Parts: sequence; structure tokens; C-alpha cells
Amino acid sequence: MGEPAGIGPELALKTWHLHRHDLPPFFIIADPGHLASLAQRLAWTVPIIAIDHPGDAMDAFSRGLPVLSEALPSEVKPGSLDPRNARAVIAAISRAVDLVQDGQAAAVVTNPIHKAALYEAGFNHPGHTEYLAELAGGDPTPVMMLVGGGLRVVPVTIHLALREALSALDAGLIVEHGRIVARALTADFGIARPKLAVAGLNPHAGEAGSMGREEIEMIGPAVKALRAEGIDAEGPLPPDTMFHAGARQRYDAQLCMYHDQALIPIKTLAFDSGVNVTLGLPFVRTSPDHGTAFDIAGTGTANEASLVAALRLAAEIAATRVPASLAAV
Amino acid sequence: MGEPAGIGPELALKTWHLHRHDLPPFFIIADPGHLASLAQRLAWTVPIIAIDHPGDAMDAFSRGLPVLSEALPSEVKPGSLDPRNARAVIAAISRAVDLVQDGQAAAVVTNPIHKAALYEAGFNHPGHTEYLAELAGGDPTPVMMLVGGGLRVVPVTIHLALREALSALDAGLIVEHGRIVARALTADFGIARPKLAVAGLNPHAGEAGSMGREEIEMIGPAVKALRAEGIDAEGPLPPDTMFHAGARQRYDAQLCMYHDQALIPIKTLAFDSGVNVTLGLPFVRTSPDHGTAFDIAGTGTANEASLVAALRLAAEIAATRVPASLAAV
Repeated sequence: MGEPAGIGPELALKTWHLHRHDLPPFFIIADPGHLASLAQRLAWTVPIIAIDHPGDAMDAFSRGLPVLSEALPSEVKPGSLDPRNARAVIAAISRAVDLVQDGQAAAVVTNPIHKAALYEAGFNHPGHTEYLAELAGGDPTPVMMLVGGGLRVVPVTIHLALREALSALDAGLIVEHGRIVARALTADFGIARPKLAVAGLNPHAGEAGSMGREEIEMIGPAVKALRAEGIDAEGPLPPDTMFHAGARQRYDAQLCMYHDQALIPIKTLAFDSGVNVTLGLPFVRTSPDHGTAFDIAGTGTANEASLVAALRLAAEIAATRVPASLAAV
Repeated sequence: MGEPAGIGPELALKTWHLHRHDLPPFFIIADPGHLASLAQRLAWTVPIIAIDHPGDAMDAFSRGLPVLSEALPSEVKPGSLDPRNARAVIAAISRAVDLVQDGQAAAVVTNPIHKAALYEAGFNHPGHTEYLAELAGGDPTPVMMLVGGGLRVVPVTIHLALREALSALDAGLIVEHGRIVARALTADFGIARPKLAVAGLNPHAGEAGSMGREEIEMIGPAVKALRAEGIDAEGPLPPDTMFHAGARQRYDAQLCMYHDQALIPIKTLAFDSGVNVTLGLPFVRTSPDHGTAFDIAGTGTANEASLVAALRLAAEIAATRVPASLAAV
């Protein structure tokens, strides 16, 4: 569902409306009445089919958008947060995880949420991803990968001020991320021997220490440690020359040191169609790479490309993850 | 000339060879014998025409590559630095500036140099650009702009470790760069009312101070100061969403806070064809956006796209800069 007052619900409708013939069947955990009235208001012919079990979605999908009901207590006004609906938003996430953990769905695709609204309802995680990690149980380290424009970028530090990101970086963190990414490229993307590009931190990757020593003291040793584990990591590379067309062909993923080092190239190349994938969870989770966009919610103009790509990639990863023994049956 | 043991000389030959019909006439200050033997070795039919005066280049250009002689005392071995040639490299730069200051040439295009080699010959500037600024006399503040892929990016801090760039940034520096860029967009690029995008420093431009305060305390006030001077600056903008196709159409230049914030998007989009333009000098100067590439020097394989774009842009700027009163004659 994601935040019902954001663009999530209309993107689900639009995606079924325009792309159902090219997508794997999906269902949405949401309020069927809300979706039906939204479809009517936008004058989109999307039959809303309430289902009782995920298994019913396969059959229903060709006739309409299958919805597993999570009722919203308060009427949704697009663009306007209503704290009374926050519990339902949180419940939709945990139900999705239950279903995928239980084998009733192949993957979870999450529409964007608005964290501030959920905090008031007792949600106490820094974000979607951390909540999913807790629901997954155990002690997973979720790692964010963004896929699009021929890139698979992974920021080692994420939502920190740049100054704080510099302090938070260390070789252990880089190695841990490199391991999870290498494993996921094989298990989720089917790449037998993945090749990782590891970015430097400073201009020209420090130019042999003349512009910063992090490459020599931290990133270089991390790359060495990864290689010692048999992971084909290369770096530290000059950050500005690892994302162009030639480089995109050379590497299967790019390990980046801070948020914008990863986000600038992918958003420059694939602004509307990037997909967020959470690696390191015991289930498949993708998400469109945009927010709730309250300013255009309810108008039907939001671009569905990222949700379409997220659904497609979730299905691909789920198919790749099937153990070989099962797939052969 | 640039560094004669690098790819500069063969790029000049290749550019004349393949693009002379689509380019404004240019001449090179270099060693005619060196160029002739290089052309012969690469089996490229490029007649080398020694000229005595820049004015002769106009006529000679259709028949061959015009060369104003700057003799090299030592034979050039591609890929191998020879300190005996350093003085000639430096002399070629200062002669180019003399000619353009004297009105005998419309613009200077500099091939890449290798600074370490020149330091031994007494060169004591951090780089090409600073030397040009000194030759220009007065007290110009040279500002680097990179043009390519639909972007015109200007890093406010350049060759500093990222940690040092954070300390070096201040509102005054941003305002000074914004002024020079706005002025150049009008005078050099013919844009009557240029629109500047000013980048934030932190992820999501700090999200109202929750991830860093530089946007609130430094960049925001700088944007305000620029606007108060009548400059149409917008920002601080989230750094990851200011370089995609839609944003590229919205702004005439992007003011960036550090090297890779500017270099990552432009090299991702225009790896081979970016051009370096020095703003704030009393003459027109462009340069290809690559180094001496010793590893491939002499093989003829280096990509000439950036030099071609640098020559073309130099001519365009020179034509735009001509005072209206002269242009009307």
C-alpha cells in the first residue's frame, strides 16, 4: 500500500492498467473501496477484485487488480496525511512480509511511506528497510542497492550528512557491504563470478595520497581483504570515471562511499526508472525509487516506470533465488 | 602543444585529418618535425605546413595542419617524459597567450600537460589554469567549467581531498563563483538571463537540517545573495536530482560544491567529449577534458572527440564575445 495519501495507490492502478500484459501477476494489500473510488475519479477502467488469499491473485489478475483487504479507517485525501490511517499502513507491510515468509508470495514490493506520519502511530524504525529487517527476524544487515540505467550502485553510508559519512566510513563496513553485494549478485542476479567496482572517496581516488589518504588507509585494504576472500573487487577507482557507458559494461555493481556518489550517477541516467533492492534479507524486496510526491498525488500524472521496474525485478530475483533442486522439478 | 610525449600531438593530427571540414581553422604551436614524423609513423596523410604568422593559418588550413614552430631539443618518445623538452612546453603556452592577447588568434586551446615534468624546469603553478591566469596579468579568478552531455558544471572547490573541500567551502566562495558563471553564461554563451542550479552538499540537500546544516548556514544564504544581485540562482537543490534529462533542460549551469559532485554526472554522460572552459580570464581558453594518457600515446587510438569539442566551443565563445559594435562592422 505505502502511504495511501501519496502516489502509491494510483501508481498501482496505472501499472495494472497500462502494463498488466507485460508483468508477472501481483496483488496489493490495500483498501479496496479507496482504490475503487480513486480509479473512478481518474476515469481509469481498473476493476478492483477483492481476494481472500494470495493464491487467488493468479486467476484474478487478468480481470482486474487483485486486492487483499487492509481497511483504512479514515477517508483518504490525496496529498493530505491522516494519522488515523497510519496503523493500516504499518499492518500492510507486516502482512506482506508474513505472506512472503510463508511462501504465499514470491516477493515484497513496497510503495513509498511517509515516516513522520508513522512515528506518531508508534513506528520506531529509521525507515522502511529497517522495519523489514526486524520483521525478517534474526540479525540481517540490510544493504540498499539501486538498479537502473545499466548500473547497480550500493552506497556504503546512506542517510548521513556528508561530514558524518566521512567519519562513519571504515574498512570493515566496506568489506561487509562488498561481501553481501557479491553474494547477492550471484544468488539474486545469477552472475556466477561478479565483478565489483569499489569507488575511491577523494578526487581522482586521492592521486596516490596527494588528495586524501582514505584510499591508502581504508579503501585499498578493504579491496584487498575482499579479493583475499575470492571476491573480484577492483579499486579504489576514481569516482568520476566508473559510471560511463564503457565502465557500466565492465562491472556488475558499484560500491560507493556516500549517498550522492551512488545516487548522482543513477538518477542522472535513470531518473524515472530506478529500483531500490534490499540485499541481505531472507526474502525478496524491491521498491520504487521515489517518495510519496504529495504535490501531485491524486492527479494521475505520477510516472509509473519505477514501480513497473520494481515489480519486474522482484519477479526476476525471486525466479533466480529458487534453489536449483526445486527449479529442476 | 601540451606534453609532446602524451596523446596531444596525435590528437591534433587526427582532428585535422578527420574533422577539418567541420571545424574552424586552427594552428598548433609545436615542433613541425616531430608532428611530421608522428604522422608518417601512424600512416595518416596530414601535410605539416610550417607557418611564420598566425594569419597564415587561415589559408594553410585547407591544405594541411598549420604549425607555428616551437622546436623540441630532444627527440620525443611517446609515453616517456623527457625533462629537456619541458621549457618548450611552457614556452608554447605563453606564446599562445601572447598571440591571443595580441588579437592574432581568437582563442587558446591547450592540450594536456604533465605537471611533474614541468616542475623540474622551474614551472611553479598548481596547474595549467593558474599559469594562464598569471600570464593574463591583473588579478583574474579563473573558474573551471566543464561542458558536455547537456551540462555545464562548475565545481566551487576542485582538487582537494573531500574532507578538506568541506572545510574550504564558504558562502563567499559560492557567491564569487556564481557571479563569474552568470557573467560568463551571458558574455560567452549568449544567454541573456541565465538560470543557475546551486547544489546542496548533503543527501537530499540536508532535508531541512536533519542531515547536515551547510545548506541552511552557507549555501542557502549564498543563493539568496546571488538573487539579491539579480542572478537567477536556485537552490540548494538535492544533488542527485539536478542532472537528469529534465533538469538539464531547466538550468544553464550547475554550481557544485566539490569535484566529484560536478565530475561524476558529466563524465557519466559525456566521458569522451567533455570540454574544460576557463571562465574569468580576459581571453578564451578551452581544453580537452582528459590527461596525457601515456599508456596509449603514439598508438593513434586516443579519442579525439574532446579536442574536437574544445576547438568548436572555443570558436563559439570567441564569436559570442566579439563586442556588438565590432560584430556589426
